[in-house]
Parts: sequence; structure tokens; C-alpha cells
Amino acid sequence: MPLERLSFMTCESLTAVPLPRNEPPPRIQIQRVEPQVDCGRFPVKRTIGAEVVVTASIFRDGHDVLGAVVRYRPPGARRWREAPLEPLGNDDWRGSFVVDACGRWTFTVAAWTDRVASWQDEVRRKLDGGQTDLEGELSEGQALLGAELSLEKLLAVDAQDRHGEVELELRLGVDVERVLARFGAWYELFPRSFGGFAGVEQALPKLAELGFEVVYLPPIHPIGETNRKGRNNALVAKAGDPGSPWAIGSALGGHTAIDPELGTLEDFLRLVASAREAGIEIALDFAIQYSPDHPWLTGHPEWFHRRPDGTLKYAENPPKKYQDIYNVNFESEDWRGLWDALRDVVLFWVEHGVTVFRVDNPHTKPVAFWEWLIAEVRRVEPGVVFLSEAFTRPAMMTTLAKVGFSQSYTYFTWKNRKAELEELMAQILEWSQFYRPNFFANTPDILHEYLQRGGRPAFEARLVLAATLSPSYGIYSGFENCENVPVREGSEEYLDSEKYEVKPRKLDGELLPLIRKLNEARRATPALQRVDNLRWLDTENAQLVGYVKDDVICVVNIDYAAPQEGLAVLPVQVGFPPAFNVRDLLSGETYAWRIGRNYVKLAPGKAHVLRVAS
Amino acid sequence: MPLERLSFMTCESLTAVPLPRNEPPPRIQIQRVEPQVDCGRFPVKRTIGAEVVVTASIFRDGHDVLGAVVRYRPPGARRWREAPLEPLGNDDWRGSFVVDACGRWTFTVAAWTDRVASWQDEVRRKLDGGQTDLEGELSEGQALLGAELSLEKLLAVDAQDRHGEVELELRLGVDVERVLARFGAWYELFPRSFGGFAGVEQALPKLAELGFEVVYLPPIHPIGETNRKGRNNALVAKAGDPGSPWAIGSALGGHTAIDPELGTLEDFLRLVASAREAGIEIALDFAIQYSPDHPWLTGHPEWFHRRPDGTLKYAENPPKKYQDIYNVNFESEDWRGLWDALRDVVLFWVEHGVTVFRVDNPHTKPVAFWEWLIAEVRRVEPGVVFLSEAFTRPAMMTTLAKVGFSQSYTYFTWKNRKAELEELMAQILEWSQFYRPNFFANTPDILHEYLQRGGRPAFEARLVLAATLSPSYGIYSGFENCENVPVREGSEEYLDSEKYEVKPRKLDGELLPLIRKLNEARRATPALQRVDNLRWLDTENAQLVGYVKDDVICVVNIDYAAPQEGLAVLPVQVGFPPAFNVRDLLSGETYAWRIGRNYVKLAPGKAHVLRVAS
Repeated sequence: MPLERLSFMTCESLTAVPLPRNEPPPRIQIQRVEPQVDCGRFPVKRTIGAEVVVTASIFRDGHDVLGAVVRYRPPGARRWREAPLEPLGNDDWRGSFVVDACGRWTFTVAAWTDRVASWQDEVRRKLDGGQTDLEGELSEGQALLGAELSLEKLLAVDAQDRHGEVELELRLGVDVERVLARFGAWYELFPRSFGGFAGVEQALPKLAELGFEVVYLPPIHPIGETNRKGRNNALVAKAGDPGSPWAIGSALGGHTAIDPELGTLEDFLRLVASAREAGIEIALDFAIQYSPDHPWLTGHPEWFHRRPDGTLKYAENPPKKYQDIYNVNFESEDWRGLWDALRDVVLFWVEHGVTVFRVDNPHTKPVAFWEWLIAEVRRVEPGVVFLSEAFTRPAMMTTLAKVGFSQSYTYFTWKNRKAELEELMAQILEWSQFYRPNFFANTPDILHEYLQRGGRPAFEARLVLAATLSPSYGIYSGFENCENVPVREGSEEYLDSEKYEVKPRKLDGELLPLIRKLNEARRATPALQRVDNLRWLDTENAQLVGYVKDDVICVVNIDYAAPQEGLAVLPVQVGFPPAFNVRDLLSGETYAWRIGRNYVKLAPGKAHVLRVAS
Repeated sequence: MPLERLSFMTCESLTAVPLPRNEPPPRIQIQRVEPQVDCGRFPVKRTIGAEVVVTASIFRDGHDVLGAVVRYRPPGARRWREAPLEPLGNDDWRGSFVVDACGRWTFTVAAWTDRVASWQDEVRRKLDGGQTDLEGELSEGQALLGAELSLEKLLAVDAQDRHGEVELELRLGVDVERVLARFGAWYELFPRSFGGFAGVEQALPKLAELGFEVVYLPPIHPIGETNRKGRNNALVAKAGDPGSPWAIGSALGGHTAIDPELGTLEDFLRLVASAREAGIEIALDFAIQYSPDHPWLTGHPEWFHRRPDGTLKYAENPPKKYQDIYNVNFESEDWRGLWDALRDVVLFWVEHGVTVFRVDNPHTKPVAFWEWLIAEVRRVEPGVVFLSEAFTRPAMMTTLAKVGFSQSYTYFTWKNRKAELEELMAQILEWSQFYRPNFFANTPDILHEYLQRGGRPAFEARLVLAATLSPSYGIYSGFENCENVPVREGSEEYLDSEKYEVKPRKLDGELLPLIRKLNEARRATPALQRVDNLRWLDTENAQLVGYVKDDVICVVNIDYAAPQEGLAVLPVQVGFPPAFNVRDLLSGETYAWRIGRNYVKLAPGKAHVLRVAS
């Protein structure tokens, strides 16, 4: 029996499609323009000197010949430039332009019909098909190019005809930053453990010689006294406990003041200048939180969260309480005054020579605030690098990157098994147009169980993974000493955490030689300065993590207890010769390797970082 | 030595981010709303009665509790409706609405902070954490909901608070069509081979009994005489040769006239009405091309392509010539008059009861023309179904679908090997939000080598594949007779093609019983009425194509020369019980099958179409 027909009399009308008044609508379709993020809502990221490769799908009805360009405009420029897009076949087109200045570049795509090339293509096909009567074709060519031209001349003209040009309305952005936004080795230290700014200054030559680009300091401001935390996060501090640097503000000042225990503003400026001379940048911690003694609580109580009875609310993530911390209310009535004041804190330090900021927990502050603040700061100083410390779900992590954070902490510390690392890198590669990773191997908050259990071999393995998988990576003081005692079993907090007490430090850890070699290898090897060139290698051993990045092959034994043997299987697609030499950038040794199966044996935690001899 | 620093003094300023004047910018982020096509530029497609499942990524800073809805509006409605979105975790939300009318629906997403639920969540966590001093929390709850309420009452309120609501600016579309746009069996026949419209009318009961929903007729208009093609595409027709129906137009009229060889307009209207009574729709062929005798060439010469000397240009795809065909110029000065006239041709037939059009070669006409024309026709009659016959590259095929074609021919005829079918279906599934396939197994232009070499077994296999893989499929007259002689070796053209001569037909092919069973099975089995529920099965035999669609399992032996045996491996994920019965919808036989490996043996070209007993 026939299928029951639903009456189409219930159908309502569709929206009409309005036509333009004079010219018919454009015939050329421009689709799938890359690179773009979220339909062009956000820019992609590049660093200065990069080649931005643009692709698009461009076509029209019939078989006319098209031409196309990418139109691009550097920051602040009035005029657009053009670079050609070349047809690759199947309606795919490709071109590029180089971004040789920092700031926001804009680009779009335009295409047209080349009537002359179309005519020439038609005539050549007819000639190839043996046609001899071409009177009509000749008259058409002459109508396009000139009545006196012969067929041969018409076929030879390169007329660059542009008919019916279409330009995409969409404007796509490229945020171009300096190289440090993508590539650098970071060292985190507490100045109070080095003898204040003066002590850090003395450590600079060694840090430079170790090859660090950034020295990152937790907050350097006066620390609150009320509700100060004691050693090992004790609820009540004892006399002499220095408190957490993140409990910012006291009678001595707030976010634009300096903890006198560390030195004076002049000491700090001298540190920044000396660092710069040594090729190192000082990164400050921007933490939007307030101890009970911070000047703003009395100066601007209207900027803070309060209970109906007027009392201020300290920070919470129930059931956890942070009695030493108060948070501002981004929707307070004077939100504009608050936002301006926060921006001005950052600009204060920018004016004093700081151009790298590690931002504490940005995911507990509005996304729109960060988008605005980062743009405001970059208007004054476009080279400022912002590192997002947001350990949260992917949607927020990626959105913070999209709105302007130059780079971001990742889940790296929790990804220790091979499959976990593969999953992590797949996610990072998916995000690589707008999210730059920084692989800190440890932080004052995160001492992973793998390091706790594994001792030195674990530290070595994680150091090599961090330093080779990611162009930006970091370690926190003590990593080089293989410091790995947690406050209690099952915790990721350090015993006697430096967050709550001074730990006098010298740069004397057993891992320093390995760190030096890795940083030297990274600086000398372009393959290690990007994240998107990763290709996993089969090793036939779940404890051997193998990968190749252009001309660098890495194999890491992530078993901290036992030696492991296996393979590094190099497929033909890596493009190496059938046999070739490699030099281990860590040991200096040379080996003969080949496409196909290469035998590998590594002691616990050891690794090969092999550069293919050119 | 330190990495060379690029001076960031070359950096230009970034674009400032303007802030709103009064309220702070919204905190809630709404991203990745699905389903959408090309950033909302095009609608997705559904058929009437479908449930549109909407998903989005919705989140904000901090840990406040959110609420969200999908807002949707039926065609022509003034007011928006709401359906809830439920949180699935990881910032993913999901909801749905049913489209119970044809036309263009619109939807978007809105979200807000539920301050009451946030407060309740905070307090519950504190209570669970053992906290007893909740004075401050109580005062907050009372400030939100009422000073007299106790803590218990406050925790029980379902306040439906909506604070800081954000609605996406983006409006997403759903084009809802009648079921025939998605599902139907098509039969293509040349009326002149059946004795004109009267003869077709006599064949209707049999076609209805065979289970066809659509009978598609090549162009029914008067055929040109000048440059008429002869049998087997001879350049010159002999006396009595009827010519190609696609060489439209003579002194007897153009696209709104009827070839008197087929009957009168009244005969046609009677055919349409009889067909509808029998549960069949007559589909017409809309071919925008003109024989040299078409009235428009003298009536509207300004609408056609001409050489500079004024002579009209016949159609070409060099080096091929189509001397019996002239094409209009969509960019002629009176393009608006031309476009209106073309629309009026379609509307003429719509007014005479035709609501299905197969469009010939739409990819050689402007995309914008189709987008406009389809919208214009649907404004008058929303239920009109348009089938796109565009054998071209994917970019154009998909764009035609996106701008409104209800369904499209595919590459099916050229995909005969297992791997080719897998690739084809993967592509179709990728496009399934906006592109509906119609698997014609043959056409007057395409007699594939597989059918030429394979004979009846090949025809049977291809019929089962077409009818089960795609909710819309078709055959062209003669398929049921296994007609398979090409005009020459290596050609896909039929010998003595019906395009150029009358072939007196009766519905008497050997495949009719199989066709009847397949169409009956399709109508009785929802699983066969959609394309996106396909799952391939491992058969351990490249000649056995196995797949499951919900409760239907198919295995087809695509080897037309030899019997084949192998397996149908059913993975656990298909959700069947460990053991179950299946009934073969083609043979009526019942078998006992199981999760895991099922033995299969099939003669050349034979297939199992098994429905799982419920």
C-alpha cells in the first residue's frame, strides 16, 4: 500500500532571497578559508617572521578560469597588500604571506573570472581537438583584447583580466607575537629563598649559562598578616612564618608595592635590567586576589564581594575555604573603576620593564575581562607575553587562549603514560592555531606521584619530554635537585612547601648538566621550537615513548625502575635517506640509523635526543 | 649564548576591545552550537516530524550554576518558543525540539546564571563538608528569596532564577521538507516509449504495486528539429528520428509547452492526477537549455550568449560541441527578466500540480540563481522537491545542496568496489546535515562497466545496495530487464540509446519481483528510511559488503561471477541480544544469528536483507 503522504499544505513559506538591484549576484564561491578560529571570531596566533599559509575552496559554475589572491594588512596599515593564491586542483587554492611585525594582522580572500585565460583555454582545447574553423573564437578574442591581434598573439597575451571580482566580507585575524610567546625555557623561583632580588641577581649568570629565557617569580608584593597561613598550609601562622606570596597586600602596600623582605623597587628594576643584559626576562605573577590587609579592602570596599550584612566574603570553593584571600566582584557597581585599576596594576609593571606575566587562575575571572585587559596592555606594549595558569576544563582553557593569552599551562603534569601523552598531544595539535602550550614539569602546587615514586630517573624522563615535546617548558626550583617528598601520601603538595616558608636555595642540583644540554639543543635546533611537527613512532614497547620532529628523533624510557629495550620504527614518510647518521644531542655520541627498525635500549629514565646529520 | 632577541619595538598596537557603557560584558560563553552549516550561512535539513537535537558548549568563570535553553521559531511565527538544554558535564549541553511543519525554522541558544541554584549548591556542599556556622549563607539566601525563609525552605525552592542572560546573536536555520525529500523509490521512464501520457497512465497501477513513490520523466516539451541528433547520437537525424528530449523547443513551443507526440496538456494533467491517486508523484526534468528552434531564441535573443558578430553560440565543453543546444547568459543585461522567466517556467508546472523537479546540470548555472529560484518557488509551494543532477566536484555538489536542493545524485554509479563504497558513504555521512543522496543505479547517460560485464547478478547486487544504503534511490527503464549493451566497448552510453529513439517498453523485467520486495521492505522498515545510521560490518571478504542499520543487517555479494562465503561480524555495540532471530525480507526465511561471527554464503550478486526479530 502506498506510503502515507503528509500533506504539504501545512508547509509554511520559506524566506525569500533578495536580489541586488543592478548587477546579478556574484557567481564565484569562496569557502573554507583557513586558517581561522570559530568562524573568524578570534584570530589565529603566529610569531614574528612566520609564513601564514592561506587555503580556500574557490569555484564557480561552468569551466571559466579563475584567479584569486589573499589580501592582507599589517597592523596599523591603511592599504591592503595582495599575494597570489594558486590553484591546486579540486577547487583548492593556496598562497601565503609573511608576518614581519607584531600585532594584529587582517586578511581575506578575493577571486575573479579571467575571461582572457578562459578564452585562451577554450581555444587551445579546440586546437588540440583538431578544430580549424575558429572564426567565431577569433572575433571573441579580438573583442576582449583588440581587433588587430592575430590568433597567435591573442593566445600569447598575459592579460591579467579580473572580471566579476568577489571579496569575502569576512575579515580574519592573525595575532603576531614575538618568538618568546612560542619558544622559551622557564625557571620558576621564590626570590625570598635566594636572598631577595639581590640574590636572584647574583644567580643570573648561572641561569643564563643554563640556557633559561625566562625567570618567573611568584608574587613579589607585601604579604598579609591577618589569617596568614603557616608552614605546610597550617591555618594559623607562627611568629616568623612568611606566609604565602599569593596572599597579597598589607599595610605596606598592594599589587604595585614590593615586599620589603625582597628589596626595594630600585632593587627590582636593577634585577630586571641585569636579567635583560644576560638575555633573560623576569616574569611576574599577576594574581587578582587580596589578603584581608590589602589596601583595597579599606580603600575600595565597593569592589569586593560582600554578604547582605556588609561583611566581606573570603574566597571559597566549597567545602574549601581560603580565609587568607578575598576576591573582587567583577560586576560591582563601579566595575569600570575596578577594571581600570586592575589594568593599571599591569601597566605599572610594564612601565617598569616587565613584559612577561604568568596569570594565576584566570578561569575564575570573566573571559571578557581578560580579552579587554590583554588588548589594553598590548596597545601600550604589544610585546607583552601572558601565560595562563588555568587547570580547568578544555572549553575555558581554549577560550582564554583564544581571547589573547600567549601561552597556557596544560595537563602535562598528569600525563605520564604513553597513551596519556598521545592523547594530550593530539588535543594540543587540534588547538595549535590559537593555543600555545607551556610544559611545566612541576609547580609549587603540583608534585606528581610519578616524580614522588620515581626519583631521579623519573625527573630525567619528564625533563626530556617537557623540553622536546613543547617549545615552551618550565621547571620550578628544586626540580633540578629531584626534590620529591609530598606533604602526605597521596598528596601532590610538597612537604614543607616553599609557598609557606623560606627554603634557602643554591643552583646546585644534579640535573643541571642535563638541563644545560637540553636548553642548548633546543636553541640550536629549529625542530624543537615548534609543537605542530610531531609524529609518533612505533617502539613496540609501552615504556618507550618515541617521536620524530623534522630532523630530531627522541626516544624516552618512561620506566623509572627498569631498563627497557625496543625499537624506533621510522616510516618512509619521514623523508630521511634509507641510511643516515644521527648525533645524540645529550651524550654527543653518533649512531648509524635507518628507515625501518632501529634497536633502542635505555636505562631507567634515560633518553635519546638524536639529530639527523645533514 | 643567549638566543637573539627580536626587538619588540617593531610591534604595532592591537585593536582595542570596546566595553559596553553600563553593564559589564556578559560572562557566559556559548560556543560550538550544533547543528549548523558553514557558520550558520546555510540551514541544516530535516523532514517533517523530525527531532532536532541541539548541542552547545556553555560555561562561565567560577562555579556558578547555569541554565540554558534553545529558542526556536517555526516558519512564519512571530513568537519564539523555548526548550530546555540539559547539562551533560564538561560544559556540554543538549536539548531538542520537534519540527512539525515544513519551511524555514530558526533557532538559537540562550543561557543565564541561576543565582539561587548556585547558592543552594554552595550551601549543600558546606553542609556535606560538616560546616555548621551558616549565618552568612543564610542571610545571602534570604536576600535572594525572602527574609522570612528558613534554611531548609531556601534549599527547597525551585526559583528558576535567570541572571545575566546571554542570547547568541547568531540565528541558525533548519529547512524542513516533506518526507519525500528524504525517502522514496524513483522510476525514470521516457513517456514516448510507453505510448505517451496515456500509456504511462495505464502503467501506473503496476508502478504503484511495485512500490515506487516517484515516476520521473525526461523533458516533455517539443523537441527541436534544426541540428536534431539521430540515433546513437548521430550528428544528423534521419527522417523519423525523434531527437533528444533535452533539445528543448520548437515552433510548437518551449518549456511550458508539451510535445504533441506525448499528448496534450489535459492528458498530462490527467496523468498527474491519476498518479497522485495511486500514491505516485510525477517528477519533471527542468533543463535550462534551448534547441535552435526554441521560441526564446527569436523572442528573447538578448538572453543568450552571442559572438561579437551577433550570432548565437551553441553550447560547448571544448572540444565537445552540442550543436543542438544553446545556453542562456545569466549575466545578460536583462538578467532580471531572464531569471523571472525561468522561475515562471517552474511555477507554471507547479501551478499544474507538479511538485518534484529533477534539475539537469545545475552546476553549469550560477549558484546564486538556484538559491533564489528555489526560495521563490518554495514561497508559493513549500513542498516542492528539487533533485540536483550535478556530476562534478564536491565543492559545487555540496554548495548546491546547501542553497536548497532537497536531494542530489551522487558518485554511486562509479563506486562498485567495497573500498569505494566505504569512501562514498563516509563522504555522504560527512555531508548528511545538508545533503540528501539519491542512489540512481543507472541513468540514460550512465551504464557502468560493472553492469555491462556482470549481467543479472550485477544488476541484483547494485539494486540491493542502492535501495538499502540510501533512503532515496532510483532506476531508469530497462534496469529491470538487465539491459546492458553499451554503444561501444569502453563507453558508458547505451547502444541505441533511448535518448535518441523510441524503445517500446512494457513493465516486464525479470528483476521486478526483487524490486517489489525491496520497496515493500523499505516502506515497512524505518531503518531503511535514513542514511546516517550506517555501520559497516567486517566480513573477512572483499567481495562481501556487510552493514547494519539499526535493526537491519545487509550482506551483499558484489562478485557477479562467483559465489562467496565469509562472515558478518556483529560487534557488541550494535545492541542486539547475544542470540536473536532474523528474517530475510527478500526470501522470507528465518535464521538464528548472534553477536560475533555469523557465517554467510551467497550466490553471485545475491544478498541478505535481514531484519532482527523484536
